[in-house]
Amino acid sequence: MSYLDPPPGVVRDLVASALAEDTMPLGDLSAALLPDDARAEARFVVRTDGVVAGTACVDETFRQVDPSITVKWLVTDGEAVRAGDVLATVTGPLAPVLTGERTALNFLGHLSGIATRTRAFVDAAAPLRVWDTRKTIPGLRALQKAAVRAGGARNHRGNLSDWVMFKDNHLTALGIDAAVAAAKDRWPGRTVHVECDGLDQVRRALDAGADALLLDNMTPDEVREAVAVADAHAATHGTARALLEISGTIRLDNVGDYADTGADVVSSGSLTHSVTVLDIGLDIDVKRG
Amino acid sequence: MSYLDPPPGVVRDLVASALAEDTMPLGDLSAALLPDDARAEARFVVRTDGVVAGTACVDETFRQVDPSITVKWLVTDGEAVRAGDVLATVTGPLAPVLTGERTALNFLGHLSGIATRTRAFVDAAAPLRVWDTRKTIPGLRALQKAAVRAGGARNHRGNLSDWVMFKDNHLTALGIDAAVAAAKDRWPGRTVHVECDGLDQVRRALDAGADALLLDNMTPDEVREAVAVADAHAATHGTARALLEISGTIRLDNVGDYADTGADVVSSGSLTHSVTVLDIGLDIDVKRG
Amino acid sequence: MSYLDPPPGVVRDLVASALAEDTMPLGDLSAALLPDDARAEARFVVRTDGVVAGTACVDETFRQVDPSITVKWLVTDGEAVRAGDVLATVTGPLAPVLTGERTALNFLGHLSGIATRTRAFVDAAAPLRVWDTRKTIPGLRALQKAAVRAGGARNHRGNLSDWVMFKDNHLTALGIDAAVAAAKDRWPGRTVHVECDGLDQVRRALDAGADALLLDNMTPDEVREAVAVADAHAATHGTARALLEISGTIRLDNVGDYADTGADVVSSGSLTHSVTVLDIGLDIDVKRG
Amino acid sequence: MSYLDPPPGVVRDLVASALAEDTMPLGDLSAALLPDDARAEARFVVRTDGVVAGTACVDETFRQVDPSITVKWLVTDGEAVRAGDVLATVTGPLAPVLTGERTALNFLGHLSGIATRTRAFVDAAAPLRVWDTRKTIPGLRALQKAAVRAGGARNHRGNLSDWVMFKDNHLTALGIDAAVAAAKDRWPGRTVHVECDGLDQVRRALDAGADALLLDNMTPDEVREAVAVADAHAATHGTARALLEISGTIRLDNVGDYADTGADVVSSGSLTHSVTVLDIGLDIDVKRG
Amino acid sequence: MSYLDPPPGVVRDLVASALAEDTMPLGDLSAALLPDDARAEARFVVRTDGVVAGTACVDETFRQVDPSITVKWLVTDGEAVRAGDVLATVTGPLAPVLTGERTALNFLGHLSGIATRTRAFVDAAAPLRVWDTRKTIPGLRALQKAAVRAGGARNHRGNLSDWVMFKDNHLTALGIDAAVAAAKDRWPGRTVHVECDGLDQVRRALDAGADALLLDNMTPDEVREAVAVADAHAATHGTARALLEISGTIRLDNVGDYADTGADVVSSGSLTHSVTVLDIGLDIDVKRG
Amino acid sequence: MSYLDPPPGVVRDLVASALAEDTMPLGDLSAALLPDDARAEARFVVRTDGVVAGTACVDETFRQVDPSITVKWLVTDGEAVRAGDVLATVTGPLAPVLTGERTALNFLGHLSGIATRTRAFVDAAAPLRVWDTRKTIPGLRALQKAAVRAGGARNHRGNLSDWVMFKDNHLTALGIDAAVAAAKDRWPGRTVHVECDGLDQVRRALDAGADALLLDNMTPDEVREAVAVADAHAATHGTARALLEISGTIRLDNVGDYADTGADVVSSGSLTHSVTVLDIGLDIDVKRG
Repeated sequence: MSYLDPPPGVVRDLVASALAEDTMPLGDLSAALLPDDARAEARFVVRTDGVVAGTACVDETFRQVDPSITVKWLVTDGEAVRAGDVLATVTGPLAPVLTGERTALNFLGHLSGIATRTRAFVDAAAPLRVWDTRKTIPGLRALQKAAVRAGGARNHRGNLSDWVMFKDNHLTALGIDAAVAAAKDRWPGRTVHVECDGLDQVRRALDAGADALLLDNMTPDEVREAVAVADAHAATHGTARALLEISGTIRLDNVGDYADTGADVVSSGSLTHSVTVLDIGLDIDVKRG
Repeated sequence: MSYLDPPPGVVRDLVASALAEDTMPLGDLSAALLPDDARAEARFVVRTDGVVAGTACVDETFRQVDPSITVKWLVTDGEAVRAGDVLATVTGPLAPVLTGERTALNFLGHLSGIATRTRAFVDAAAPLRVWDTRKTIPGLRALQKAAVRAGGARNHRGNLSDWVMFKDNHLTALGIDAAVAAAKDRWPGRTVHVECDGLDQVRRALDAGADALLLDNMTPDEVREAVAVADAHAATHGTARALLEISGTIRLDNVGDYADTGADVVSSGSLTHSVTVLDIGLDIDVKRG
Repeated sequence: MSYLDPPPGVVRDLVASALAEDTMPLGDLSAALLPDDARAEARFVVRTDGVVAGTACVDETFRQVDPSITVKWLVTDGEAVRAGDVLATVTGPLAPVLTGERTALNFLGHLSGIATRTRAFVDAAAPLRVWDTRKTIPGLRALQKAAVRAGGARNHRGNLSDWVMFKDNHLTALGIDAAVAAAKDRWPGRTVHVECDGLDQVRRALDAGADALLLDNMTPDEVREAVAVADAHAATHGTARALLEISGTIRLDNVGDYADTGADVVSSGSLTHSVTVLDIGLDIDVKRG
Repeated sequence: MSYLDPPPGVVRDLVASALAEDTMPLGDLSAALLPDDARAEARFVVRTDGVVAGTACVDETFRQVDPSITVKWLVTDGEAVRAGDVLATVTGPLAPVLTGERTALNFLGHLSGIATRTRAFVDAAAPLRVWDTRKTIPGLRALQKAAVRAGGARNHRGNLSDWVMFKDNHLTALGIDAAVAAAKDRWPGRTVHVECDGLDQVRRALDAGADALLLDNMTPDEVREAVAVADAHAATHGTARALLEISGTIRLDNVGDYADTGADVVSSGSLTHSVTVLDIGLDIDVKRG
Repeated sequence: MSYLDPPPGVVRDLVASALAEDTMPLGDLSAALLPDDARAEARFVVRTDGVVAGTACVDETFRQVDPSITVKWLVTDGEAVRAGDVLATVTGPLAPVLTGERTALNFLGHLSGIATRTRAFVDAAAPLRVWDTRKTIPGLRALQKAAVRAGGARNHRGNLSDWVMFKDNHLTALGIDAAVAAAKDRWPGRTVHVECDGLDQVRRALDAGADALLLDNMTPDEVREAVAVADAHAATHGTARALLEISGTIRLDNVGDYADTGADVVSSGSLTHSVTVLDIGLDIDVKRG
Repeated sequence: MSYLDPPPGVVRDLVASALAEDTMPLGDLSAALLPDDARAEARFVVRTDGVVAGTACVDETFRQVDPSITVKWLVTDGEAVRAGDVLATVTGPLAPVLTGERTALNFLGHLSGIATRTRAFVDAAAPLRVWDTRKTIPGLRALQKAAVRAGGARNHRGNLSDWVMFKDNHLTALGIDAAVAAAKDRWPGRTVHVECDGLDQVRRALDAGADALLLDNMTPDEVREAVAVADAHAATHGTARALLEISGTIRLDNVGDYADTGADVVSSGSLTHSVTVLDIGLDIDVKRG
């Protein structure tokens, strides 16, 4: 168990679901025709540079299809790999290796795609840290957020139950002062995070006692101003400076413009909602007897 | 129920799972603080041009969060929309609307992203038809394949239980003649589909009696040759011409080169494995009383 | 993993469900009273001739009740057995062996009953091949269809998602030509199967391009005529002959009359919807210490 | 809710599972092609005489496929019907009616088959009452036992948690006196049921205090002797007579020989383990517009 | 498998559910930061005297979190322990031991709390035996009832499907004679249990043929009278005396007053509905390397 | 949806599970015998003073058993009630009302028991606020924490994924400075909470940058000293004062001694791990016709 692992049980359940959707009700028609003595000696090979995530899903897939299959990893989640690298070897009866191949690759490619995109974003944003969002693929939240960690970014709140975040509509209904006061009263100990569209809102959120601000759709210079406001507020009031998140129209190609603004963290939904699969294949040598 | 709908029950189960992962164990900390009389009058608005899919997931999300929320659609799955279009209106108590907002958008954006990319591929490939693949996000197969239909493409086999497909490793273990013969003996009535890397394999697969060929990684000219071979074989043997699928390195920007090759269908994993979310937002007017 | 196995995960889930319904909420009241040192040396013995299926369910049942129980098989799925044959030995603590006994036998007897009836049907129909149907016991589709394979028959389509089949009501709504055209357009690569009540319909279905015909409720002579029509159509149009399935009032005692009609396959719902259990018992020697 | 109903929730869960196995992952390929305005006016018609069970499963099937479908029953569970009788009408859009048709019939035919066979057994055995057994189809215990009630028989213990039943192996390990004493000590309030192969065992079980005896594989005259022994024991000891169950080689064609033996109840696994489907069809009129 | 074990599968499923609710969606934030080489050598130590139950849940918790963790028990379910006793040792990597600690303790403390309270009740009531009730925590019925057995009491009916129990409202609707007659007719073999508020009802229930009576809210003297009535009825009618349960306002501090009333069993909902956790801690030595 | 509600879907799933464990496999044997025309007019009446929670579970229980049952509440979650108060009326067919009665009461009594105990604790601790803990009944976390809110206390972290909390073993393995630094690096935005056994640890935790301190097993005077240390640290370093939680041997009868210590919040596992059911009954008038 490590910082990169998803919670216990998630991998088992999602792999079972993925195998069911790929094999019900008759099983793998094609693999069922293979001779019993055909064996696979196979290698997961990556076709482009990237970062690996999802290895536990691969293990679990082959374990559920046939526990006699052996998977040996040459890399671990979070490791950078180069095109042509062998990630793991897979040996066992050919039929179940082929039955599990696509499910294993679907997990591995998607999650490594997240880790790869995340790593690029992290590198471009440094020393700003990078957060994911709740813009995840339904049902895959826990695995996607683990892949984000493998890529070197940090997880924003896990879900709505995690900390308090007020966006514009909450603020319209409640007002900023009442909102923050209610949050601190009802949910003591939680981060209170407030979305701000401009400097005025930054000041009001700070006055209301917000722990973190989401600076939405600001230019680098606007962010720098917000940072200065927050610094000044902290100095004046004798509190820690609020955590400053920037978000909005920030992409891989412009995040570097924000790197030295003094904000703490940049978040991007694209890490999980618009993933390009990492191109990984399973190269198989078929053996007999 | 229509051609675009996923199977019964899938939407209910996946929405329940998505809401659980976004709200357990304490619920929506922020929405819980809203005043009881705050109401939402909201609109799903699309920010870029695209094609809609996943409307049933939105309905189900709000239904599970609070059945008093009303969703009215101005568009249907499969409909092309323009940036700025209102897709639906949502009215109801503000708190549950905000609780369901992200889950609803995660489904709608992802599935509409598939439909949008699919439509572009379909347009570029015409008159070639377009197939998806089994390269789907684990757990979302049924919804992703419905979104592909909404985009105007066709579904390749649903899973390994659907029809027989022999790839290089099957053929190494079995030999092409034995493979096709076994498939026709053991699984009568199913399509027998054979992957071919070159013209020699095309000829052997046809001689063996394959119903469909996957022409892998061929140039447009190689595809034309394969088409000619298949036409000639059909004429000689008095059978229908095998269905010819092309696949491999075909992308949106070069699929047009294959449009007039005479092949039947082009498949692309990118429709489902590397999806860019369609940018849709929920614009909310907060009302009181 | 072989041609006879059900998809991964199905056996695990169905055994868990069967054990729950037989033991909740208090467990096995009777076995709970047995002395700790009582052990079972037991044999599954078949009381009448038959064909075995469902051995994996027996293994899984005892594994879930108590992994220290050992099951050794003397036969495999699909093997013909004679009254009195020992199928397997079971050794372990007496209490969990008795707790699992009925669940194990319920699976083994039902699935072997399917395999046994299927084998008789297959023998009577040869050289016609035999298909099952979708007339299965709810929840057991995957296991029942695996048992049909163990009996030597073939699986008709696994479910509604597998291939296209037009029955009279589809044809009434769509018309035969439009129906087949729509199927080939919307679901390329799939078998298009059309139900025919008479020769007229046979001709129209062939003209429309059907890949397979269901000849419903025809006499052997009518089937022979239909075969002749289909042969002639194939010769004239230079296509493979449609696959011809016969169905309807065909039973074990009259299927032989159809054996030499030239049809390809006969289907019977009775293989799965009206199963007589194969009489198998667990003979136990109780040991102490 | 009545005596014939299965427990709450069972129908919902089993119907969901049955629909999933019949439609995943792509849905009903054929029904998806039907025109939107095609409607069904349909009737469930029984082809042979029988007894109905499983109507709630039919309702739930169509409700889950499309809640706009209306099912109206002309009969209720437990009602005897004649060949040609209309059991229910079904009206709604044609496509979902066809999608649900097979699942609905699989439940209705199987459960009505149980009720029909049960009714015949009950009639032949009267005034002996009839019990089912735990020899049920895995996963369907609750529905099968409800269908047995619809057929007019009674339910033996629901499962191993229900009451105590000692068979030969329990008795070998424990001894009859210790077994009954342990049962009465550990599980007070439960029926203690003892299997007896002969009169000696009957006497010993009665002396040990058994509440019910299973008279296994006895002739009618042997049963009469056992009844006399039990009557005498009750008179001598001042207790109620033990409940006497007969079982073993008793079939529909010889159960009448036991009717007047004085035993209380006869049990037969065949009610649930070897079911012949009741032949029911859905006759559909297709309407447009 | 023993008299104290819950049914197969229950522990696995409830532990999975408990771990999910304690770790989703991001896992254990704190344990994830621990160094890989930190190991735990730990002991479950009980802080107050009590009786142990739930050891299987502890094993399963650590197995699901990390199968490399080793748990060795020095006690078994049902064993009395003294403050300071070591119950088990736990060794393994520190991070997963800490992740599983609270879930393991929540099971162990709650179930041991039941066993402890039960043991006290059993001791105070002897020679009266003690029954639990259906007043259990939703979802935990099977585990709570197993803990009651570990405490030395007996299980009342497992659920509504187990035996027939008529309370005042059933009797109002049916009348006592019709109620008992219906129960014996519809559910032969089951205990028929009737709630009685006074001696009149006792007599009527006995005349109607009830197998067991619940004497509700009676004083010790009233119970003695009811016992006398039941004894006399049995002697007069030549039947076994009905089982007599007492219930109502009986608590640990007054149950002794009923011990010699001649009733058979006393039931108390407090064994399961108002449980004080047994105070158990996990004392951990942290090791490196 | 309000601050007191559990997350969407939880009530539905737990009620389904509770009904299954109380009625499988045969249903409610007793209620099944009731006449069809018997109806219930019933009232939930509380027997002792308390606070209500769990009303949504009652609604859902009756809805799942029979949707024709009507439940009308006279109180809401969180409302204080007096012995004899009617909480709700229930009207509908008698049989399903009786079938659902125990399940409904098990939820309502347990959750109201939590709310009641919580309210007493809150009143005794004021102006200190009260937190629950993760010492919850497995599977019921979300419902128990909602009941705590109904009682007027606040929820400590929902689970291990919520915020970072370092206890003695984490600190031994990591050291306080490295621990807090790692938490702030890896999980930015989360509360970092540190357990402290004495003033030295308080100082070190504050120096390390902890956001919250758990003052474990301290006397009121020790707490006052810790408060003074924290205040001084905040003043010196220009930060907000750390949130100060007290915990350990604090019970209802001594929490008042801590009320004016200046700490922020007191937590107690007893709110959820040792619950006394609130005594609520369902008084039913049986009507006919």
